[in-house]
Amino acid sequence: LEESWSFLDTVESNFRPLVVIELAKGTKEETIEWLTKRIVDKKANGGAQLLIKPLVTENGVENIYLVGASHIRLLLGAETVGLVKECSDNSMRTFTYSSRKTFKHFADDNHNFLTMAECQYIIKHELENLRAKDEKMIPGYPQAKLYPGKSIVRRLLTSGILVQIFPLHDREELKKLSHSWYGRVKVGYQPLDDIRCYFGETIALYFGFLEYFTFALVPMAVIGIPYYVFAWEDYDKYVMFATFNLLWSTVILEVWKRICAILTYRWGTLLMKRQFEEPRPGFHGVLGINPVTGREEPVYSSIKRQLRIYLVSLPFVCLCLYFSLYVMMIYFDLEQWALDYHRENESNFSSLMLYVPSIIYAIVIEIMNRIYRYAAEFLTSWENHRLESSYQNHLILKVLVFNFLNCFASLFYIAFVLFDMKLLRQSLATLLITSQILNQFAESLLPYWLQKRYNKRMKKRMCSKKTDMDLSLAEQVNMEKEMGTYLGTFDDYLELFLQFGYVSLFSCVYPLAAVFAVLNNITEIYSDALKMCRVYKRPFAEPTANIGVWQLAFETMSVISVVTNCILIGMSPQVDALFPDSKMDLVLTVALIEHLLLAIKFIMAFVIPDKPRDIQMKLAKLEFESLEALKQQVKAFQMQL
Amino acid sequence: LEESWSFLDTVESNFRPLVVIELAKGTKEETIEWLTKRIVDKKANGGAQLLIKPLVTENGVENIYLVGASHIRLLLGAETVGLVKECSDNSMRTFTYSSRKTFKHFADDNHNFLTMAECQYIIKHELENLRAKDEKMIPGYPQAKLYPGKSIVRRLLTSGILVQIFPLHDREELKKLSHSWYGRVKVGYQPLDDIRCYFGETIALYFGFLEYFTFALVPMAVIGIPYYVFAWEDYDKYVMFATFNLLWSTVILEVWKRICAILTYRWGTLLMKRQFEEPRPGFHGVLGINPVTGREEPVYSSIKRQLRIYLVSLPFVCLCLYFSLYVMMIYFDLEQWALDYHRENESNFSSLMLYVPSIIYAIVIEIMNRIYRYAAEFLTSWENHRLESSYQNHLILKVLVFNFLNCFASLFYIAFVLFDMKLLRQSLATLLITSQILNQFAESLLPYWLQKRYNKRMKKRMCSKKTDMDLSLAEQVNMEKEMGTYLGTFDDYLELFLQFGYVSLFSCVYPLAAVFAVLNNITEIYSDALKMCRVYKRPFAEPTANIGVWQLAFETMSVISVVTNCILIGMSPQVDALFPDSKMDLVLTVALIEHLLLAIKFIMAFVIPDKPRDIQMKLAKLEFESLEALKQQVKAFQMQL
Repeated sequence: LEESWSFLDTVESNFRPLVVIELAKGTKEETIEWLTKRIVDKKANGGAQLLIKPLVTENGVENIYLVGASHIRLLLGAETVGLVKECSDNSMRTFTYSSRKTFKHFADDNHNFLTMAECQYIIKHELENLRAKDEKMIPGYPQAKLYPGKSIVRRLLTSGILVQIFPLHDREELKKLSHSWYGRVKVGYQPLDDIRCYFGETIALYFGFLEYFTFALVPMAVIGIPYYVFAWEDYDKYVMFATFNLLWSTVILEVWKRICAILTYRWGTLLMKRQFEEPRPGFHGVLGINPVTGREEPVYSSIKRQLRIYLVSLPFVCLCLYFSLYVMMIYFDLEQWALDYHRENESNFSSLMLYVPSIIYAIVIEIMNRIYRYAAEFLTSWENHRLESSYQNHLILKVLVFNFLNCFASLFYIAFVLFDMKLLRQSLATLLITSQILNQFAESLLPYWLQKRYNKRMKKRMCSKKTDMDLSLAEQVNMEKEMGTYLGTFDDYLELFLQFGYVSLFSCVYPLAAVFAVLNNITEIYSDALKMCRVYKRPFAEPTANIGVWQLAFETMSVISVVTNCILIGMSPQVDALFPDSKMDLVLTVALIEHLLLAIKFIMAFVIPDKPRDIQMKLAKLEFESLEALKQQVKAFQMQL
Repeated sequence: LEESWSFLDTVESNFRPLVVIELAKGTKEETIEWLTKRIVDKKANGGAQLLIKPLVTENGVENIYLVGASHIRLLLGAETVGLVKECSDNSMRTFTYSSRKTFKHFADDNHNFLTMAECQYIIKHELENLRAKDEKMIPGYPQAKLYPGKSIVRRLLTSGILVQIFPLHDREELKKLSHSWYGRVKVGYQPLDDIRCYFGETIALYFGFLEYFTFALVPMAVIGIPYYVFAWEDYDKYVMFATFNLLWSTVILEVWKRICAILTYRWGTLLMKRQFEEPRPGFHGVLGINPVTGREEPVYSSIKRQLRIYLVSLPFVCLCLYFSLYVMMIYFDLEQWALDYHRENESNFSSLMLYVPSIIYAIVIEIMNRIYRYAAEFLTSWENHRLESSYQNHLILKVLVFNFLNCFASLFYIAFVLFDMKLLRQSLATLLITSQILNQFAESLLPYWLQKRYNKRMKKRMCSKKTDMDLSLAEQVNMEKEMGTYLGTFDDYLELFLQFGYVSLFSCVYPLAAVFAVLNNITEIYSDALKMCRVYKRPFAEPTANIGVWQLAFETMSVISVVTNCILIGMSPQVDALFPDSKMDLVLTVALIEHLLLAIKFIMAFVIPDKPRDIQMKLAKLEFESLEALKQQVKAFQMQL
């Protein structure tokens, strides 16, 4: 072991750059010196024991540093973050350095045992956990205060000395991945395991969900097509379609949990222990003692936060909702105006004009959603949540409520106030298709085009005609540091959530919605893949075991859709005709069916196990083993007595 | 430590009998010899290392044995079962022998550190985990097969050699407890902590729930009284009462979770790790390898079990439900007959006769419930579930569905088919009051009276006039072994569940139900306490962190009650009169209000945290500490390298 320890200490041997640190221009020498010393310092001295090298370009040193780590350091880091890897006997176990030989594909000279994304995650974790000892401030910046235990990197980020930290792309791997992912037109699954190896579990799970969701929509789309082709208007057919939809949406959400468990078990994140959550970077407060950790850190009164939430955020959200409804009423005025115009002029142009208000409204909705998003982010960060997860939950709640109302209020109004099914179908189609086109354009194609133009300019400036593969490390880093930052899967899930709403809430009125959703999702897979591989900086991998709050959001939507579909069916003239004598009977029947459907939904959700049987068995086996190990420990101790 | 170890080995010193083992009359000598040897044998030799002594009475040795353990053995056992105790710094921690000095009230000579119930639980656990080594059968009984790892005690029980194992009462403690519990008429809380110390967490939690539920019903009862006193029939008042009831029932169920967390945190069971579940005693199958444990044990195909459930149990339950409905229709015929009789004769006797069918029906319901209960137990054990928890869940589901229908079908029929609110009120009152009286009688008073009579006879036979306190150990054991066995909290919870149904399902028709429920529960506390202390053998303590599946059952009942109350209110003539023009509007309004109430219920259940903030903090602190400890371990290991 002596030998490996000395290997860990040699800074230069076999340096592989993994993570880039960009410091602000003009950062003081003493700060840089202190930071690099802390990063390379031994663990025993409170350092991170990583390797760091300045990036040397033609223009000399540019305050950009490359961080790497020795192989053994990474293995020890894997133990610290609690990575779960596959053993030789095909079971998944938490990696420990001492049991390393029992893991599949482990060899002391196999530097691919940990994927590059895992290595980068470990380095990020180690950097973030580099904590101040007795420093009172960052050397050279007296205004950037430190206290014992404060994460140095987070303070550097908030005080603007550290511009960004990002993991490097691996050009070769990326080329391979993008080829098998979106490079050729093929029918087949995405290479989810490769995506996970390159981008981490959160992003792989998003693409897994996107793919699963697309497949799950196919039956709906297939059943929906004949309604359009044969112009079916029989109501019993619509009822059948809606009933199928409602039960199907419950089934797909339950089955997703099982598939998610299979994926995350294979990736090891299902078994990974949750790490203790540190305060989020933006959190501020007066220095106090955290009652949980007993450490000195900023504390912020929970009552103050509650006041901010209920006295400022809540009224603001309500105001925005009101504004959104106001805009909706303007849309209906416009719609009326277009209708009047069409009646007066009866021309091709005027019939085209009929679609204009919907299209304008769809664009306005998208714009409002985006503006509101910024406001919600500002407000939520002003609420000063201590944990990133709590911040995310409050942000998601705010955004979901507004987006739901903004997107669907007009449809609810048309359906349940105006009772105009024809207009509902038309609005639904226009909203769905316009928002899909806008999204694809704004999310992927526009950034891709901008990025491409920028890259061309960059290359021209560098006066080289090299392809991406031939770029030197310095050129690669310079190119990547200018790329946009991927802000997480929030927007992607939100888009799917709204799409699910369009498909399920009014499914019995517009069966073709599922067809458009499927078509959109197929291109979405490609454009999102393109976005991940070419437009944005590589994101840090984030281990995750499920899609979190989105599962709940989708399930809630599916419950709401039972109610809306039952009402829509009850309101239709055809069903109306079935109860010629008593409208009462009609309403009571509809209410009864609705309650039955809801009951079936809940029973199904309860009966279908969240994890497949073999995963349950494997988890039980692991739990049994750990209990047995504990017992053996107790027994051994008792024997010693 | 040498000294304490030798203390552990001395069988006779300071022997305190804790648990009684009764063997069948005429059990062979070699079997007894083998069993006692295995029980006293050292852990290292695969024994239980407990102390055992035959009970010597006037008639000589009677195949009754007393089991105890040395103090240090019990402490080591406490570590094995994972007991959680309070530390000197008021935090709750898993007890380990090596850290024993850090626990509150611990002293090497303080033999009260573990409660008697805990000691008995430990002994039960150790006895059940006494496993066969290389024995192929129980010595002397070739038909009682053993295989390595099989629990010896369970095989002895199933082959009838072991009649029963039960923990001894502590006469002195019991007297103290019963005095403070039900001995004097007083207003105040039950001594839950003392109950827990004596009977364990499951029973204490039942009494805690019973008390909490009674208090929670008081506001309903108080609001309900004026409806009776002033004979209010204004509908707006009934609507207010029902709305209050619906929201209140959600609140009380959510608040119970918090109170439950407070109680079980204090008792340590909230933190206690779940033990690995062994197959239940009745489970049988062919010998195979358990895929989870890798041990040889009986396995039974899951498909066979599913077939038994779906092809036999399910049809049988449906048949019983049909039979129950059939009996209900007979009841309505009787009711009609009584009404006709009253119309013809118009006498005092005939008006009394009006109540007779309801009373008969209530009695029949109780009888059917009890018969069905046996059938359900037989069927569920025939389904051959491997785990006790799975057996319990299937049994509870069967019994709940049947009891729900059996008790409430007639009320639903009266309310929603006959639309007869007067009859509904009358039936509800009769059913509720009759079932309460029957229950109290059958559950507690009858067994108490029988037990008392038996005790008297016993004492007479023993020709002594001693009080309970002066009985010799042999007399005490002989008395207790003849007492009935308490079969768990199932029936007690079921009674509360049905009561909750009577109170909440039709609360807007009969506000007085809550009053009767409160009165019943107050006497129920006393009669159940009497039952626990005087009628039944002391039960083994069972650690538990919550009331399990009953929480779900109560919550489901509270959701159903929203639906029934909304319909009842909608059907009332007074509400009807508010919508003179359109019955449609009435139904739609009621449906809207119902959906709103359900939405509010779910949001409330989601928003109210299941654990109070300080418990959350304490749990977070413990989790943080264990994560830190793990990190320190990794760090220490890395430093060693």
